[in-house]
Amino acid sequence: MALWGGIEAGGTKFVCAVGTGPDDIRAMERIPTTTPEATIGEALAFFQAQRRQLGPLSALGIASFGPVELHPESPKYGFITSTAKPGWRDTDMLGAFRRALDIPVGFDTDVNGAALGEYHWGAAQGLDTFIYLTVGTGIGGGGLINGRLMHGMLHPEMGHFRLPRDPRTDPFPGGCPFHGDCFEGLASGPAMEKRWGQRAESLPAEHPAWALEAHYIALALSSYICTVSPQRIILGGGVMAQRHLFPLVHAGVRQVLNDYIQAPALTEHIASYIVPPTLGERAGVLGALALARAT
Amino acid sequence: MALWGGIEAGGTKFVCAVGTGPDDIRAMERIPTTTPEATIGEALAFFQAQRRQLGPLSALGIASFGPVELHPESPKYGFITSTAKPGWRDTDMLGAFRRALDIPVGFDTDVNGAALGEYHWGAAQGLDTFIYLTVGTGIGGGGLINGRLMHGMLHPEMGHFRLPRDPRTDPFPGGCPFHGDCFEGLASGPAMEKRWGQRAESLPAEHPAWALEAHYIALALSSYICTVSPQRIILGGGVMAQRHLFPLVHAGVRQVLNDYIQAPALTEHIASYIVPPTLGERAGVLGALALARAT
Repeated sequence: MALWGGIEAGGTKFVCAVGTGPDDIRAMERIPTTTPEATIGEALAFFQAQRRQLGPLSALGIASFGPVELHPESPKYGFITSTAKPGWRDTDMLGAFRRALDIPVGFDTDVNGAALGEYHWGAAQGLDTFIYLTVGTGIGGGGLINGRLMHGMLHPEMGHFRLPRDPRTDPFPGGCPFHGDCFEGLASGPAMEKRWGQRAESLPAEHPAWALEAHYIALALSSYICTVSPQRIILGGGVMAQRHLFPLVHAGVRQVLNDYIQAPALTEHIASYIVPPTLGERAGVLGALALARAT
Repeated sequence: MALWGGIEAGGTKFVCAVGTGPDDIRAMERIPTTTPEATIGEALAFFQAQRRQLGPLSALGIASFGPVELHPESPKYGFITSTAKPGWRDTDMLGAFRRALDIPVGFDTDVNGAALGEYHWGAAQGLDTFIYLTVGTGIGGGGLINGRLMHGMLHPEMGHFRLPRDPRTDPFPGGCPFHGDCFEGLASGPAMEKRWGQRAESLPAEHPAWALEAHYIALALSSYICTVSPQRIILGGGVMAQRHLFPLVHAGVRQVLNDYIQAPALTEHIASYIVPPTLGERAGVLGALALARAT
């Protein structure tokens, strides 16, 4: 059976794995994200060592932080492009691994990778149109539409559109350096910390922070629902690890949409419509394996 | 060459046509939308008469007002479902025409029809991911993603998500019976009329109504851009017939996104990114012909 390599390339760490799926991870390693040379070098060393031990890899998948270039016809295909992360602007991720390992390399955003993992092995099996959203240090989304990963002009940036904010109930002006009170500016982990003066995970479940957080997430999900009519929405990321948020988000979406969209998934079964990822903490690196599988 | 029939089924009129494309419309008729029996009966009479004169039709396309059922496996496939329009709830549109004419019938939303027409013959040629939005009596959107029409769970309802509204600059609470100040509630033709006390088309180009209208449209388009990353957005409908809105919308989208998304289409060529439909007033019925062609 084909053996794949996967890299969840994040801003703080690269998670590298070799295997064939969630029940068959043969090796895994976490590498801190420092400079491109050091981090990519360590990742390459991992895969070369695994190849010697486990045998050849048929493909590698990279699910990367971004922004990234996803158009195969672009000379910068497979690059991290205009990132604010020091040293990583214009880094040829795909090329570095393809040249060194000489195998096909699949490349996409971290959230599209996670979406593809959930599609093959998790909460999106059998669906052709769904969204995977991560709410954590940042907010980003991906997914499949009409059976293929969401790309379009570039790739979605689902955290960066404006939401209604009532300054009487939420005077915090938002923390996004580009947009102030866009979704990410209002509802990411760092935004919660700035607004409340303590880290989100230290806020008790009865704190009003969570009702406000669920309200913003519900507004954003309602916007996605009206725009693409997904068959399901998967909510991952550090903030969503607070599972008490889910019922609040379910109620919030129903309230915002107000039964306008007559679909049983919304009006009767919303708890199975807006769900956590099945693959949990390994969603990212399994998504990268799924990208290798799709290559 | 195959001859197609098309119906733009709207809430005030059905536009029926026979032809093969924009340069070859052989016959066209407008029928007022009264009861399903009368309106469908007249439309059938039109196609039967044209068939006798022009020869057989290879397929019919219906681009319908909604909400509609688009899942072929549903027993209500091809129905207008939960519409507020008196008498039209649960109307079997597709079945009525397929039984009487005994030809394949393609069926979709009015906006998906218009999008498909623009894809074949208009402003979306060669694109695989774009949005067609109509801003008029209502606001609705459709389009292609990954080369196929947008369906998902039901179909998009692009007018019904919430936008930020500042009550100090816009005290009008919105006119949507479901959502108050959703996009349609703030920016449809009737919303403009309620806010300003006169019909939108009677407001002069220098009236502040247009800057506010462009602002709301820009917020909504920014949301679509962040969610699906379309390669182009086509803006049709009665309100957009005011062409002086386009430069205001272009500037508004650039201001809202604030160069966060580094794509030349947005940062350098926005006037060819957000465009009017090429097919003009016939976009609807040509879209219906395009649905027939795709059947």
